[in-house]
Amino acid sequence: MKRRAFLAAGGVGLAATTVAAPAIAQSQPEVKWRLASSFPKTLDTIYGGAEQLAKRVAEATDNKFQIRAFGAGELVPAFGVLDAVQNNTVEMAHTASYYFVGKDPTFTFDCTVPFGMNRRMMAAWQRQGGGQKLLQDFFDDYKVHLMPCGNTGTQMGGWFRKEIKTVDDLKGLKFRIGGWAGALLEKMGVVPQQIAAGDIYPALEKGTIDAAEWVGPYDDEKLGLFKVAKYYYYPGWWEGNASLSLYINQQQWESLPASYKAILEAASAEVDSWMMAKYDAENPAALKRLVSKGAVLRPFSNDIMSACYKTAQQLYTDTAAANPKFKKIYEPWKAFLAEQDEWFRVNEYRFDTFMFQQTQKKT
Amino acid sequence: MKRRAFLAAGGVGLAATTVAAPAIAQSQPEVKWRLASSFPKTLDTIYGGAEQLAKRVAEATDNKFQIRAFGAGELVPAFGVLDAVQNNTVEMAHTASYYFVGKDPTFTFDCTVPFGMNRRMMAAWQRQGGGQKLLQDFFDDYKVHLMPCGNTGTQMGGWFRKEIKTVDDLKGLKFRIGGWAGALLEKMGVVPQQIAAGDIYPALEKGTIDAAEWVGPYDDEKLGLFKVAKYYYYPGWWEGNASLSLYINQQQWESLPASYKAILEAASAEVDSWMMAKYDAENPAALKRLVSKGAVLRPFSNDIMSACYKTAQQLYTDTAAANPKFKKIYEPWKAFLAEQDEWFRVNEYRFDTFMFQQTQKKT
Repeated sequence: MKRRAFLAAGGVGLAATTVAAPAIAQSQPEVKWRLASSFPKTLDTIYGGAEQLAKRVAEATDNKFQIRAFGAGELVPAFGVLDAVQNNTVEMAHTASYYFVGKDPTFTFDCTVPFGMNRRMMAAWQRQGGGQKLLQDFFDDYKVHLMPCGNTGTQMGGWFRKEIKTVDDLKGLKFRIGGWAGALLEKMGVVPQQIAAGDIYPALEKGTIDAAEWVGPYDDEKLGLFKVAKYYYYPGWWEGNASLSLYINQQQWESLPASYKAILEAASAEVDSWMMAKYDAENPAALKRLVSKGAVLRPFSNDIMSACYKTAQQLYTDTAAANPKFKKIYEPWKAFLAEQDEWFRVNEYRFDTFMFQQTQKKT
Repeated sequence: MKRRAFLAAGGVGLAATTVAAPAIAQSQPEVKWRLASSFPKTLDTIYGGAEQLAKRVAEATDNKFQIRAFGAGELVPAFGVLDAVQNNTVEMAHTASYYFVGKDPTFTFDCTVPFGMNRRMMAAWQRQGGGQKLLQDFFDDYKVHLMPCGNTGTQMGGWFRKEIKTVDDLKGLKFRIGGWAGALLEKMGVVPQQIAAGDIYPALEKGTIDAAEWVGPYDDEKLGLFKVAKYYYYPGWWEGNASLSLYINQQQWESLPASYKAILEAASAEVDSWMMAKYDAENPAALKRLVSKGAVLRPFSNDIMSACYKTAQQLYTDTAAANPKFKKIYEPWKAFLAEQDEWFRVNEYRFDTFMFQQTQKKT
């Protein structure tokens, strides 16, 4: 790749096309795209997914389709990527859709809903439960072609300077939290803050915020949050899973040959698995390291979780009543979740429960 | 695709190559491969994975790399696919590696180990925990290039004519069970039988066997097992997950251009997700249908599971002591599982437990 030519190419991918060999111009054009990530390059998991995607697409096309990934703030701010794709400033982005609930709470379904699905259920809903079709219909309004591309699994509840023992302890708490959970926690008295990853540590260090959640042990360790808030709560019930998304400008998407579309879809699905596997492989050792460095693990109490659960159900009902786009996704999403819970709690859960009992005996 | 020419092409993929355009012969040769599945075409999940793979690879290569999938018995018997790939009778196969534990119990690690990993842990071990490298080293002896390609999740315990209440009820039970769990259950007094999917129903109907497990509600319903044995046990603790595999003849693999290798890897990962999502999306409704048709759900007792767990640990220790190949994988596998259990039981399990409690209240 000629870097200078590439950087000069700007926002319009196919405009940068050069025809290498007339015989194959139609099926394998040279395409150079820029991808704006909402995540900092220091996080080899959630940012790394974009690099993995670019690598696989290049390999699969003999370097004819090149994607260059940029970290948060390099091209556009972390939370500016939706506008950038919609406006064709960049061809594609990698982000968490719940960053955009300020535009419409319906965005939350593409990433996670508090007290919603776990990772397996989310993938089933997206890929085989009609979810992706519902989400795409919604994203059509933003001229975004959407693909799932990465997941964190159940996140941790985050880092707190003080213990959170009762529902009252939530009142007035300045808490960095991603996405729509902020609206929910606001109803519990929390003062939610949406802050990009790179800015969380200084905010927590200076005391601008009292607590912060990011993802889980491996990423949280990199951000250094344990150094400034020692109580590490679990689970992050507002993110039973968090699905990351590729946003592709629809005009750019339509301009791709069918083979490149197929390669992007397969590569995106591969990254979806890659990221989850990386989190699962890295988190256990990271959690041990954090505890050895002074992190104090604490479960959220059932009282706190139950109160938040109840508030959440009311928030969803109210939002569905006021917002037809939200309602259109919420109703089938809720029905799918209920069926998944019924099935998972029979078989998967019984297996996991037995296994965790056995292994707990040994430790 | 010209079917007649394709069928005549026989087993050697690249021999069937025709050069479409001299300018692109090196990077995009025409390749036609045959894939032998161990599964019957009636199962759109576990067999369907091969069709999905073929479709994606064709799309990604403008139909230049064509894979044709054949059901169990069409080219070779269900359990003959390893030999067929090793001998280059077919270029590739889609199967469950535990069918080959008769050759070496080490095969079990590529599919599932009783009381082993759940699906998330297995994917983490394969993709990011060093598992795939260990497995590939083992498969090198069989001239097989290996890729994970599909998973069933935790399987059900199967269909029993009579209730299994105590460890003694296992004695003398003629039980169709896949893979290495047979060796374990034999130690508990069971008479295990490895029978291909298509032959299970008649064996159970005739009383040649007393019980049979296959996968889970959606597949089991298609095989009709509920008609001949009404007690449906859970969980299938011998298959906390079951990973399916692509076997590719190593010589054929090496003959592929780099872009086709990349496409196969991405497509295989995509099918891995596709299959799990399909099972998860289809199983809940299938289980309800089965219960409405007379299936009687029963959990295995803790006594039975604990006795089998203890026997399993001894079997693994003994096998590792006698078989260096087994030991080479078992030790890191076991360490990885222990770390995964520690992590999952903190965060994911706490989230799932809370959610299942909430949803159970409503049903």
